Amino acid sequence: MQYFFDLDRVIDAALTEDIGTGDITTLTTIPADRKAHGRYIAKEDGVLCGVEIAEQVYRRIDPTITLTYHFHDGDRIKKGDIIAEVDGNAVALLTGERVGLNLMQRLSGVATRTAQAVAMVEGTNASICDTRKTTPGLRVLEKYAVRVGGGSNHRFNLADGVLIKDNHIVAAGSITEAVRAAKRGAPHTMKVEVEVETMDQLREALAAGADIIMLDNMDNDMMREAVAIVDGRALTEASGNMGDRDLRAVAECGVDLISIGALTHSVRALDISLKFQLL
Amino acid sequence: MQYFFDLDRVIDAALTEDIGTGDITTLTTIPADRKAHGRYIAKEDGVLCGVEIAEQVYRRIDPTITLTYHFHDGDRIKKGDIIAEVDGNAVALLTGERVGLNLMQRLSGVATRTAQAVAMVEGTNASICDTRKTTPGLRVLEKYAVRVGGGSNHRFNLADGVLIKDNHIVAAGSITEAVRAAKRGAPHTMKVEVEVETMDQLREALAAGADIIMLDNMDNDMMREAVAIVDGRALTEASGNMGDRDLRAVAECGVDLISIGALTHSVRALDISLKFQLL
Amino acid sequence: MQYFFDLDRVIDAALTEDIGTGDITTLTTIPADRKAHGRYIAKEDGVLCGVEIAEQVYRRIDPTITLTYHFHDGDRIKKGDIIAEVDGNAVALLTGERVGLNLMQRLSGVATRTAQAVAMVEGTNASICDTRKTTPGLRVLEKYAVRVGGGSNHRFNLADGVLIKDNHIVAAGSITEAVRAAKRGAPHTMKVEVEVETMDQLREALAAGADIIMLDNMDNDMMREAVAIVDGRALTEASGNMGDRDLRAVAECGVDLISIGALTHSVRALDISLKFQLL
Amino acid sequence: MQYFFDLDRVIDAALTEDIGTGDITTLTTIPADRKAHGRYIAKEDGVLCGVEIAEQVYRRIDPTITLTYHFHDGDRIKKGDIIAEVDGNAVALLTGERVGLNLMQRLSGVATRTAQAVAMVEGTNASICDTRKTTPGLRVLEKYAVRVGGGSNHRFNLADGVLIKDNHIVAAGSITEAVRAAKRGAPHTMKVEVEVETMDQLREALAAGADIIMLDNMDNDMMREAVAIVDGRALTEASGNMGDRDLRAVAECGVDLISIGALTHSVRALDISLKFQLL
Amino acid sequence: MQYFFDLDRVIDAALTEDIGTGDITTLTTIPADRKAHGRYIAKEDGVLCGVEIAEQVYRRIDPTITLTYHFHDGDRIKKGDIIAEVDGNAVALLTGERVGLNLMQRLSGVATRTAQAVAMVEGTNASICDTRKTTPGLRVLEKYAVRVGGGSNHRFNLADGVLIKDNHIVAAGSITEAVRAAKRGAPHTMKVEVEVETMDQLREALAAGADIIMLDNMDNDMMREAVAIVDGRALTEASGNMGDRDLRAVAECGVDLISIGALTHSVRALDISLKFQLL
Amino acid sequence: MQYFFDLDRVIDAALTEDIGTGDITTLTTIPADRKAHGRYIAKEDGVLCGVEIAEQVYRRIDPTITLTYHFHDGDRIKKGDIIAEVDGNAVALLTGERVGLNLMQRLSGVATRTAQAVAMVEGTNASICDTRKTTPGLRVLEKYAVRVGGGSNHRFNLADGVLIKDNHIVAAGSITEAVRAAKRGAPHTMKVEVEVETMDQLREALAAGADIIMLDNMDNDMMREAVAIVDGRALTEASGNMGDRDLRAVAECGVDLISIGALTHSVRALDISLKFQLL
Repeated sequence: MQYFFDLDRVIDAALTEDIGTGDITTLTTIPADRKAHGRYIAKEDGVLCGVEIAEQVYRRIDPTITLTYHFHDGDRIKKGDIIAEVDGNAVALLTGERVGLNLMQRLSGVATRTAQAVAMVEGTNASICDTRKTTPGLRVLEKYAVRVGGGSNHRFNLADGVLIKDNHIVAAGSITEAVRAAKRGAPHTMKVEVEVETMDQLREALAAGADIIMLDNMDNDMMREAVAIVDGRALTEASGNMGDRDLRAVAECGVDLISIGALTHSVRALDISLKFQLL
Repeated sequence: MQYFFDLDRVIDAALTEDIGTGDITTLTTIPADRKAHGRYIAKEDGVLCGVEIAEQVYRRIDPTITLTYHFHDGDRIKKGDIIAEVDGNAVALLTGERVGLNLMQRLSGVATRTAQAVAMVEGTNASICDTRKTTPGLRVLEKYAVRVGGGSNHRFNLADGVLIKDNHIVAAGSITEAVRAAKRGAPHTMKVEVEVETMDQLREALAAGADIIMLDNMDNDMMREAVAIVDGRALTEASGNMGDRDLRAVAECGVDLISIGALTHSVRALDISLKFQLL
Repeated sequence: MQYFFDLDRVIDAALTEDIGTGDITTLTTIPADRKAHGRYIAKEDGVLCGVEIAEQVYRRIDPTITLTYHFHDGDRIKKGDIIAEVDGNAVALLTGERVGLNLMQRLSGVATRTAQAVAMVEGTNASICDTRKTTPGLRVLEKYAVRVGGGSNHRFNLADGVLIKDNHIVAAGSITEAVRAAKRGAPHTMKVEVEVETMDQLREALAAGADIIMLDNMDNDMMREAVAIVDGRALTEASGNMGDRDLRAVAECGVDLISIGALTHSVRALDISLKFQLL
Repeated sequence: MQYFFDLDRVIDAALTEDIGTGDITTLTTIPADRKAHGRYIAKEDGVLCGVEIAEQVYRRIDPTITLTYHFHDGDRIKKGDIIAEVDGNAVALLTGERVGLNLMQRLSGVATRTAQAVAMVEGTNASICDTRKTTPGLRVLEKYAVRVGGGSNHRFNLADGVLIKDNHIVAAGSITEAVRAAKRGAPHTMKVEVEVETMDQLREALAAGADIIMLDNMDNDMMREAVAIVDGRALTEASGNMGDRDLRAVAECGVDLISIGALTHSVRALDISLKFQLL
Repeated sequence: MQYFFDLDRVIDAALTEDIGTGDITTLTTIPADRKAHGRYIAKEDGVLCGVEIAEQVYRRIDPTITLTYHFHDGDRIKKGDIIAEVDGNAVALLTGERVGLNLMQRLSGVATRTAQAVAMVEGTNASICDTRKTTPGLRVLEKYAVRVGGGSNHRFNLADGVLIKDNHIVAAGSITEAVRAAKRGAPHTMKVEVEVETMDQLREALAAGADIIMLDNMDNDMMREAVAIVDGRALTEASGNMGDRDLRAVAECGVDLISIGALTHSVRALDISLKFQLL
Repeated sequence: MQYFFDLDRVIDAALTEDIGTGDITTLTTIPADRKAHGRYIAKEDGVLCGVEIAEQVYRRIDPTITLTYHFHDGDRIKKGDIIAEVDGNAVALLTGERVGLNLMQRLSGVATRTAQAVAMVEGTNASICDTRKTTPGLRVLEKYAVRVGGGSNHRFNLADGVLIKDNHIVAAGSITEAVRAAKRGAPHTMKVEVEVETMDQLREALAAGADIIMLDNMDNDMMREAVAIVDGRALTEASGNMGDRDLRAVAECGVDLISIGALTHSVRALDISLKFQLL
């Protein structure tokens, strides 16, 4: 897994939000020195993501809790699989249960959804990638889940990639001017991507030196034509409600990338439970 | 709207995450003093939630931006409706677009999903309520969206409500002991809820003075029997994968509350767009 | 002790406040590798609270410092008792001395004051509880000290309990309306408490379904009458300058709870010293 | 008032602590647009401190709230005085009531206690000053209250003043060595203070160039002797349980300063109430 | 200027660091309502940068302070020029003086140093750019100053650009493998840069599809040869102690970029003073 | 080294700034379990400062990384010296390389510059000290580097020392009044310093009881005269562009202190490299 420098901050915010000043039920009913054993169990099939994050959640609460992994991020899990086992102080285990599950279920949902999309385009040239339509506060984690599911990442934020859209073009005067301005002002380490809606725009973007062409809301015929015009001089990216499209048909238009907002903005959590046994 | 003291923190984290050190495309192509006008447009039907949050997002970026509302939180919107209009500096407007939309779409998704559930039980005694299966970091906002959609809130965290489950009962020795311990140790302002799976447990919980009975994963026959036994001496709450159940049938068992994790853990974002016109 | 998630934040703020950029006296006069042994000594009788917090203070400064406990939170200590011993680096021990003592003395002061009140009502039905008149920033710790002293906790904040006072009643139109509004809008896990000043208000609150009745600034005769009217249908709480009242007489009116702001707003620190011996 | 850069942090922590996710009672019973008028009323005599802080508390909640002052920090107030009036949104006013009062009552308690001590030594050479025995997190505010009450401040933290005590002397080898080491290592802008218990120590400290002599736990005869020996070559400070001593008698020994931990560690809050009238 | 989202954090940290609990000299000698007028004066020639940041510093202290600009960021200033004038409360003006000056002098130093380098390569193809050898905590500001001085920015951090160096090549097995791995794993919006020391490495990098070639520590003959080999198929960047090289000679080798760590790691502050007149 | 309580904050900010969401090059090219060995090598002669801070940087990234020191802070290093060796996970080592180096090079630059100034005044009475012209956010570290280089520290911030300048004098009415006001209002633990430009001002400051006299922008003749007038009754400090003066000549005027802003505001980083070998 990458170094997520803000992961502790995300986890602490989630723990504060969920625990408040303490788990009053657990604190009043369970002796402070009681031990427990827990099992994370898959309640449906999918791609696992976030199991190590659950461990980090518990490490913030009680560093003596231990996890034993039977599956790792990226593994396919089946209903009934025991994903991991957890041992330690019962009060701590119960107190941190929900935060770990909430993160693991959501990230596994993203990875599973991504893997489905990746499977649809298998054998074609196209990669599945994400967008900036992520959950506020969880972008780095959700983009990690997209990679775990076999997808690739689009830019992480507005500062680490250039994407010229309609308003930028209007303000700059033309696609040509907008590309020139971006190449002059942005670090030379970034590619320049231009969103186009017509073949004329596409030709102007190519001539201006665009490195990536975003084909916005085009039907498959237009996309095929666009790919033919580009002819390898730039990367092509299909975009615009791709969550509702036939991804294989889109991929077969020859595009390099298909970016799908629904990978992260409309996620069904994967059903995972944590069953405890008091010792 | 309530006073959400951490909203600025949520917004700032989301802005930092999305903008990084600056929107390089916009900064290099759009003149610093250019103005723009934008319109938030519904792309599908639903219940609006979070439109004032979009305003707060913009206030953090540029306090001179103004919003004009045509709809408010809780209003039903139809595809094509202009939800609000926004005016101000073009660079600021484009820079903050995504964070505002990401929040508004997600919260409207929660409100819409809640309103559908509420409609299903209309005319019965049952209220629809949420759970702690919320997005880490966004709980207060998502619980607000549940209320906007017509639902009610379960406890906000582990500290502001007592909910005795199987492990607490095992550790305390019995339901009776667990309820006694919780009543002694928790603030007297909290009710005590007990999760039960059998009629014997239900009777013991009632006798012990439970204020709320959670009927966990019961079929409708069992729930009807449970409601009859309780007979108004406590609130009854149906729980356990309620997102997949026939809510009307559940409601007609006579329960007071139906708690549904899927209201917040598996949200489809409501499709809303923001269209700009440079001035 | 409970899980206080913000304790490190409280401790770090206190350390920063007290140490600034370094203990200039200690750093210039004591060799960096010198060791010391210290003893926490009670200078007067009382109930100990916060000794583990002193350990956490030292853990933030130097994790190699060790504490040996002779007494624990809740123990009665007598003048001259050695509460705990501490060993480690002399510079670190001297640098952190004051923050640990300031917290331990204050919390022991709260616990001692609470224990005195609890002793006064021993054998009656009444519990001693706290209020929201706590030291800004230290509420969770002070409420912990109240429990250590044998008291119970009122609500922790405005969000985890309903307490209807005069202005709420005026705004809602009547006690009946206010109770109804609160029951509809607040999570079903919370009880509804109503502050009353007259027997008419009391009867209306009971009829409206109030779970707790706060008897505000009543003399003992009125309280006795109120308890008789309630007759077990709700909890009763005596409130209003209880710090200056004869608590036993109040308790003998039959109330369930006596809430005392002075437990936390007017605390005499318990005198505890820390004596070091350089090794 | 000084620039307290961390005041917003103190206030925000206190508001978060007291309000949580919202004042559920007020939000459910009082219309969002209702206005109210409030009056801060003294319930006993004392020295006012913190009235402007109450305004800052309200500014964090709702910038449209206005305060009208009838008294200012440092003014003597009598039981029944209307200290200030506050106008604005009723929900906001009720929500922020307690945090403002908690701060104002505590600071006024410190100022009042300080003023009593100052009055006792009036006409002598002695100033009353504070110590580092302050409430964790509130030191700057409490030291401000000491000044408001007519006292002066000792060092704010371990970094902005040198105070050589027994352990420093043992480690350095002698008072002479400790003073030399501190003068060499500390910024030249700081004075060097030495705590002494005997006349021999006092003479060594003077010879070593100490700027201030702390007379620790001496009876009045010893203090008179010490002051005579010092003879104006250094400042003299009486210290050690001064809260229980006859301050006038101590002052008449001729010391320059009397430092009293009880000014801040054992504060009785001044009784101030805030009465609202809904408009 | 760009939207620097962390600028307030930088400023607040600097103010806290410089002001502590208050400017004790100013607070004790200057009446709280005194006004003053100040003039920022250039004490030597250079390129101005950061004048608006000084205004933001004052806005954090006292929003009523006003600045009148005679020069803006990027303007060349001469010794004796009045850069800006500032009016407002005297206590606030004196309290914030140093933080504003420290930032403005440092950033103007960076901009001036950059402008000197840019002037040396004028008329050639080469751009002057920065590195990651910036002051910890001030990177975004210093990179802004480089742009103000006429330079361009290299990547802002390790996440927004790929730069393959010797260790990456060893670990991946070859330049070819390293480029392939980076292109597969990094967002498609980033270019891939490879650092080379020999012509063989250069040819392998080009064949592998590198977008940018960093010529590390080459003499001018090698650089000319490298540029000839690349022949426009990639950008070329001269790197390695460029602060000590004859930049014009380097530029005339035909490279596209010259990156200079000394622009930011060894900055001479530009001498600017702020003279106040009390009103 | 001192206890720098904000060092982790400084390091975390620097790491976040430099690493963003992860070192994409290293993560895509280097296996997660690869080990490496690194050597910090001096590329020029100087005084080492900050080597332990590099260790703290790595501890934040990966606590299993170990450093072996060959030199410590304050040691003189020669070109080619191996300062320290570092072992551990290759991804972690490469990811944290730049932040550690940036801090160590800057602090070693400050220490080296200070040591040069100290050497120039060797054998005289004068100490070299710093000013508040430090890098925003790094003051405590830079003042530490000044001590490591053999210098002493002036005040750390506006709250821990009194320094009366021209505007304070004007506002107070006279030097005499300003000194009196500061002595009355500031903690008694602080000395009072007065900046003077003439012998008349000097005499008034001495008469008023100033503890330190700052001789501002005086030539050597004036300074000699001033030192003669003071005659040991106060400390004397030479100030004003001392970075451009002949320090030995200044010292020989007999001043106690020479304060030099250029020690920290115009630092040339000491050249240190970190060479890795993959294992």
